[in-house]
Amino acid sequence: MTQVELARSGIISPAMQAVAEKESLEPEYVRQGLSEGTIVIPANTHHQGLEPCGIGKGLRTKVNANIGTSPDFGDVNTELEKLRIAMEAGTDTIMDLSCGGGSEVIDAIRRSILSSTRLPLGTVPIYQAAVEAIEGQGSIVEMTEEAIFTTIEKQAQDGVDFMTVHCGVTQAAIARLKQEGRVVDIVSRGGAFLAGWILHNDRQNPLYEHYDRLLEIAREYDVTLSLGDGLRPGGLADATDRAQIEELLTLGELVERAWEAGVQVMVEGPGHVPLDQIVANVQLQKRLCKGAPFYVLGPLVTDIAAGYDHITAAIGGAIAAAAGADYLCYVTPAEHLSLPDPEDVRLGVIATRIAGHAADIAKGVKGAWERDREMSVARKNLDWKRQAELAIDPARFYRGHAQHTTASSACSMCGDFCAMELVAKYLGGAPAKC
Amino acid sequence: MTQVELARSGIISPAMQAVAEKESLEPEYVRQGLSEGTIVIPANTHHQGLEPCGIGKGLRTKVNANIGTSPDFGDVNTELEKLRIAMEAGTDTIMDLSCGGGSEVIDAIRRSILSSTRLPLGTVPIYQAAVEAIEGQGSIVEMTEEAIFTTIEKQAQDGVDFMTVHCGVTQAAIARLKQEGRVVDIVSRGGAFLAGWILHNDRQNPLYEHYDRLLEIAREYDVTLSLGDGLRPGGLADATDRAQIEELLTLGELVERAWEAGVQVMVEGPGHVPLDQIVANVQLQKRLCKGAPFYVLGPLVTDIAAGYDHITAAIGGAIAAAAGADYLCYVTPAEHLSLPDPEDVRLGVIATRIAGHAADIAKGVKGAWERDREMSVARKNLDWKRQAELAIDPARFYRGHAQHTTASSACSMCGDFCAMELVAKYLGGAPAKC
Repeated sequence: MTQVELARSGIISPAMQAVAEKESLEPEYVRQGLSEGTIVIPANTHHQGLEPCGIGKGLRTKVNANIGTSPDFGDVNTELEKLRIAMEAGTDTIMDLSCGGGSEVIDAIRRSILSSTRLPLGTVPIYQAAVEAIEGQGSIVEMTEEAIFTTIEKQAQDGVDFMTVHCGVTQAAIARLKQEGRVVDIVSRGGAFLAGWILHNDRQNPLYEHYDRLLEIAREYDVTLSLGDGLRPGGLADATDRAQIEELLTLGELVERAWEAGVQVMVEGPGHVPLDQIVANVQLQKRLCKGAPFYVLGPLVTDIAAGYDHITAAIGGAIAAAAGADYLCYVTPAEHLSLPDPEDVRLGVIATRIAGHAADIAKGVKGAWERDREMSVARKNLDWKRQAELAIDPARFYRGHAQHTTASSACSMCGDFCAMELVAKYLGGAPAKC
Repeated sequence: MTQVELARSGIISPAMQAVAEKESLEPEYVRQGLSEGTIVIPANTHHQGLEPCGIGKGLRTKVNANIGTSPDFGDVNTELEKLRIAMEAGTDTIMDLSCGGGSEVIDAIRRSILSSTRLPLGTVPIYQAAVEAIEGQGSIVEMTEEAIFTTIEKQAQDGVDFMTVHCGVTQAAIARLKQEGRVVDIVSRGGAFLAGWILHNDRQNPLYEHYDRLLEIAREYDVTLSLGDGLRPGGLADATDRAQIEELLTLGELVERAWEAGVQVMVEGPGHVPLDQIVANVQLQKRLCKGAPFYVLGPLVTDIAAGYDHITAAIGGAIAAAAGADYLCYVTPAEHLSLPDPEDVRLGVIATRIAGHAADIAKGVKGAWERDREMSVARKNLDWKRQAELAIDPARFYRGHAQHTTASSACSMCGDFCAMELVAKYLGGAPAKC
């Protein structure tokens, strides 16, 4: 049985138990969320040693880090180094987006990652299918339907916990997109592969047409489907347009079909969205997809900040998560410029964790507020050791504080003019208590 | 006559004209905003060579960079280097917060900055008054009222365009604070100096008691008063509490008294504020202060991200500015750790500009949206040169893109699997047009 089937049978699985413990919630809460579809626990039955992670309503906002080769850069060792950095920086999940090095290398990287981490792993199988189509038929648009499903099944057998599948890039959605007249058309790589395939072959999207076959594989391995937004906006000008919403309508229907089949499912969202449209996007997804977990990429609140898109995404991600998004895919400073290197990966994870945490405080997730209060107490007491322990990146904290340290207990910003020291003298010197 | 008096007389000054041109607005719009108090143009009549900058309703959100020595670090050369970096990164204004090196050094730094930039300069005169009190009387709390006003007048004579004055730290506000029982009490340096002085001397805040004297000086030089929030929260747990709002009530009254005196005025705001309280804070300021421009520090949406507080502040600043805040004071990665170095200054300015720009798109500021649309068009066309020109930091853009450049026209993230290239082939290859 899949986690959702177990939950519906009233069974609290070890995975549900583990998630409840990590979140300081009742196991029954987690079980109910799974049975209703508002929580997923991506946990492929073939994934040995997985530490289960819950995503959804009432849980801490989760962070994903994308790694993987591109056609021109990256190899097993580089990707394993990025994995190490992402884990060290505190990511909750990993996605391997490798599409470089050929199909055998892609297999090797995915298997190396699976044996090097206990975090849930996600993939986008259409990438490998595309690579294999180029190797076999010389072109992505010659990809066979059979090959797509064979790749999906191979990756499921390996133990991949969740998969992005762009089932909503239908002929109807492409028609809407053409009618709309977008500025940037399609920026999703998987969405572009499928749109190209659909237009070239004048056929329906195989992942939509044969969705039941996809559900069968997902159910067999308990792979969580992450319904990709292949038509997500690639610029603010295209946000929340008819093409995007057409796809979302289809994804909402596919969510219900997944639930009927006992398959765990979440929905992916934009992308590039003006700040004032983010809340509407989250509310729309929650309504149209009946409360399925929402997994957003950014959203980026401006198009002009390449080199700093981890910041742009942190702004959008914090607002989205506070409005109800459950899962934030990181964006690194390399976005729109190049494949990220390990330092980009680190900055991307930290910025996204900040966004998720700020949102968790706003939406009242258990334990979020308390940590900030403890930090404030440590700050008032000029207790630098405790501040470092509570900091989102203790190593960075020590480095920054040590850089300009002074003889006094204060930091070098104010030195002897420290407000904390002065006020403590006149408003009572007793250290603050938690 | 001050700018506000000119505006009320129906005169469009050269400063109003210049601001209107920079913002692509009608000069009459700017004049009306000044006369109603919703716009300020900090422009000391003694500031030679100033390029006027407008702050307020309907204008682009402005960014301020704080520089200046602390007791242990910094000197004239370092501060001038930070000034250069802040200007290069695109700050709109500078504040010199020097309180290290002694009063003569502080004079020298302020005057060097004034002669090295055409940007509006702000200060917090109580800092220098405190340094002089230590030099003269051996203690901040022995500072004489006369000395405070002498320092303010000296700085006004030098040409300082706007000054933070913590007039709202009254005996009543301190009583509210004691009654409240805060976690972090006071984190504003100026607020702490004045609270200490008030409690030690059992006297009212001289900047409140002799506010008319302050207004006289401000009127004489057309110094814009920036009413400081000395009781701003220093941790999320203290945000939007009775002490903070008590002070804001007083600041609202002082705004009206400034307007009556023909003095330009804006109001400073928090600080550390949970994401879900930011909009309420902006609305409250706008209502209680009758639409006076709102100048916020951050707000930081979590307490635990020292080392990355430029990101924390960008999240809060974007939300605040989208809700109506007019002016964002940067926060650098060094916040809570040390005095910022030049690289911290650069990152702080860029992050804050991203926040302001994202907000300007959301609130419909003229020209903001258009730049993002142009960027999207350049991105679709894989026009890297144009993308760099439109980027918030062109040098960073070039560096990032060059790092992993490939033979193809795409970037190294996707290489030959570029969605743009693939889609252009099937959805019509014509390049997008602006």
